[in-house]
Amino acid sequence: MTLMRTIRDLAGETGDGVPAEVQAVAEAEHVPVAAVVDGLRRGTIVIPRNSASAGVKPTGIGAGLRTKVNANLGTSADFDSTEEELTKLRAALDARADTVMDLSTGADIDGTRRAIREACDVPLGTVPIYEAGIEAMRAHGSVDDMSEESMFEVLERHAADGVDFVTLHCGVTRESVERLRRQGRICDIVSRGGAFHARWSVVHGRENPFYEHFDRVLDIAGRYDVTLSLGDGLRPGAGADATDRAQVQETIILGELVDAARAAGVQVMIEGPGHMPMDQIAANVTLQKRLCGDAPFYVLGPLVTDVAPGYDHIVGAIGGAICAAAGADFLCYVTPTEHIGLPTPKDVAEGVIASRIAAHAADIAKGVPGALEWDNEMSRARRALDWERQTELCIDPARFADLRQARASASPDTCSMCGDYCPMRDEWLAPAHEAASTSTESGR
Amino acid sequence: MTLMRTIRDLAGETGDGVPAEVQAVAEAEHVPVAAVVDGLRRGTIVIPRNSASAGVKPTGIGAGLRTKVNANLGTSADFDSTEEELTKLRAALDARADTVMDLSTGADIDGTRRAIREACDVPLGTVPIYEAGIEAMRAHGSVDDMSEESMFEVLERHAADGVDFVTLHCGVTRESVERLRRQGRICDIVSRGGAFHARWSVVHGRENPFYEHFDRVLDIAGRYDVTLSLGDGLRPGAGADATDRAQVQETIILGELVDAARAAGVQVMIEGPGHMPMDQIAANVTLQKRLCGDAPFYVLGPLVTDVAPGYDHIVGAIGGAICAAAGADFLCYVTPTEHIGLPTPKDVAEGVIASRIAAHAADIAKGVPGALEWDNEMSRARRALDWERQTELCIDPARFADLRQARASASPDTCSMCGDYCPMRDEWLAPAHEAASTSTESGR
Repeated sequence: MTLMRTIRDLAGETGDGVPAEVQAVAEAEHVPVAAVVDGLRRGTIVIPRNSASAGVKPTGIGAGLRTKVNANLGTSADFDSTEEELTKLRAALDARADTVMDLSTGADIDGTRRAIREACDVPLGTVPIYEAGIEAMRAHGSVDDMSEESMFEVLERHAADGVDFVTLHCGVTRESVERLRRQGRICDIVSRGGAFHARWSVVHGRENPFYEHFDRVLDIAGRYDVTLSLGDGLRPGAGADATDRAQVQETIILGELVDAARAAGVQVMIEGPGHMPMDQIAANVTLQKRLCGDAPFYVLGPLVTDVAPGYDHIVGAIGGAICAAAGADFLCYVTPTEHIGLPTPKDVAEGVIASRIAAHAADIAKGVPGALEWDNEMSRARRALDWERQTELCIDPARFADLRQARASASPDTCSMCGDYCPMRDEWLAPAHEAASTSTESGR
Repeated sequence: MTLMRTIRDLAGETGDGVPAEVQAVAEAEHVPVAAVVDGLRRGTIVIPRNSASAGVKPTGIGAGLRTKVNANLGTSADFDSTEEELTKLRAALDARADTVMDLSTGADIDGTRRAIREACDVPLGTVPIYEAGIEAMRAHGSVDDMSEESMFEVLERHAADGVDFVTLHCGVTRESVERLRRQGRICDIVSRGGAFHARWSVVHGRENPFYEHFDRVLDIAGRYDVTLSLGDGLRPGAGADATDRAQVQETIILGELVDAARAAGVQVMIEGPGHMPMDQIAANVTLQKRLCGDAPFYVLGPLVTDVAPGYDHIVGAIGGAICAAAGADFLCYVTPTEHIGLPTPKDVAEGVIASRIAAHAADIAKGVPGALEWDNEMSRARRALDWERQTELCIDPARFADLRQARASASPDTCSMCGDYCPMRDEWLAPAHEAASTSTESGR
């Protein structure tokens, strides 16, 4: 029985029948259990959790909840070490990523995924089509040689391994690829999974099996209670391509599949761009929410300029903050090496922190419970020149402590920027408060 | 004769009488000379340039122009090396800061400023009240011992040294400080200059001389054609304090001074926050533009959360991008060491790049001429897998090249994230294009 069906069968909105993970999410988010139950019922909230995996931290994604951050991991042909990916996993978890995805394309995709699953106590996502395509290339020489069966077989393999959510590019259909061709773009397709599907469909003159046989997808997802993350295989890969007809066509198709997934009791979220100028972000959120029945919106970036590879974690933080404030629920991090190479563990940590900053800034703006309170505690510690408390409270205590030591002041109550001229010292405004109380006392 | 008076005396909007720096700005910005002339006349554009300095790159700041980025430099008591600040200046200029400010508070403030002026070919700003306050402390023991004369004497000293723009906290008046006291804040005053003025005023029961004798300010500024940057001494230093009565009161007062400065033919811009939740940024831009006669808006950050010291360049990039897209004209960078210590040269470079990313992302959103074209060129290079061209075009070619080398792929036409599975390779979508042309040829 999937979580969604369990929730629907509940008589009320609270009480003994509410699964433990739902109660845990409500508690972690400082919201009523009834709000989470309602969100799950309506599909505006998902809690990705494979029924075959245990010990995964219950994590809610969706409306009214804290904006979550995903870190992508995974081997590639050039950096093909499971051990290194486990190091990145630890870096991501230490930096407090809410979920991770294993996007491995190295030699032992199954082995890496299982090792990551074993070591990972947050929801884990994958993109099964990578493995299906790469297995076909290795066995037969081309992605064209994928069989329909192989696609479903790999999907089920991932589900059986305890993967909590899967990206499926179900919206890369003959219709949307044709619209892409008519549209014309600077960057065509920039999604690997989207490229695999598009080529396969065109070469064979056949429909995307994950679309045509979406009932089989739902059957597998339902048996393992895997959450579907309907991927944006036609997402724009350049600001100039954003919000074009191909992208919107795909979103329309995904929206129809959301209805089907919900009818089957399968949790579903929608992936979004990508590259997008700042002034188009709010419209994209509105569009996704409207077309896809308010399903949780999971965005990659978005990247608000194309010119800053080496700093795309910053570019993505700008876009992610704006997007999350406008209603996106889940940010996929971007690392400094995006567009240049596979990230290192340090890049992973940088990427997670940048996305967490974006998510938190947005949570303040959209009034997520507890967000502003964290800032206020930090500001009070800052005002009190309580450096220990600032260290505890800040988003990366180790970095804070390192920088403070490296740039220490001879006036230890302040910092080396202002030293004795620190405006936080009481001496500056105190006379005003004293003058005010004197003035009141003397009746002047 | 100030630039503003010269422009006003022009018969038309173009032609021989237009000063060379105005023509240079129009050319650099890809806008008509008449647009710059009109902006200068109305005060929506400033070109900071001290008549006593030569060889400074003409730099326009204001409506319709590229968003500019300032880098703060300057010694402190703890890191008091002019040589180090000159290294930071080179780092800032190499990273292509549009302006720099020398905020030195070390032993030889005059010497550091003059060395920076000598080495700096972009507009230079300072905050004279720091020096006035610190000289009083050194000579007499307290900032309370500043004389009115000393404030004006230091202001004139900076002007005579060729400083192009000065921050003056003219809005820290008895009225606004009293409003601050009534308001109550987590962080009170976080501006050093604001703190100096507030304390001095309260202790002596006297008005801020830069407000009370603003005519003397205008006389000095007019003689050297120094641009005034009316500083936000009461800017919020915590998200919780943003857009409060003290901040808005100060802005109202500064707006009145804008009128006076323009009447005197002195260029003027307005400084803004500071710490500000994302959802208040657009309102702050509207407020500043309305209250201050559409004077160019120069913002510090803004910082959209308080909890990320160590990463405040990212926090400031998020806020700066949103603020500039909403209409702010000039971003003061924030470095990773903000709130922790004085930055290193590396921090300076990181801060400039982060702010430039924010400024550029905003310029795309607000349609600044040339902004989107840069992105499109980059995207075309990316689509063509032309790595040399990407290196040339990107915001930090050295960093791009370093990362590409460190994370190189055995498939040199791609990168190590996807390697042979790179979706930018022609093989993916080509079949669709071929299928389409076949289909057309055969009439099917």
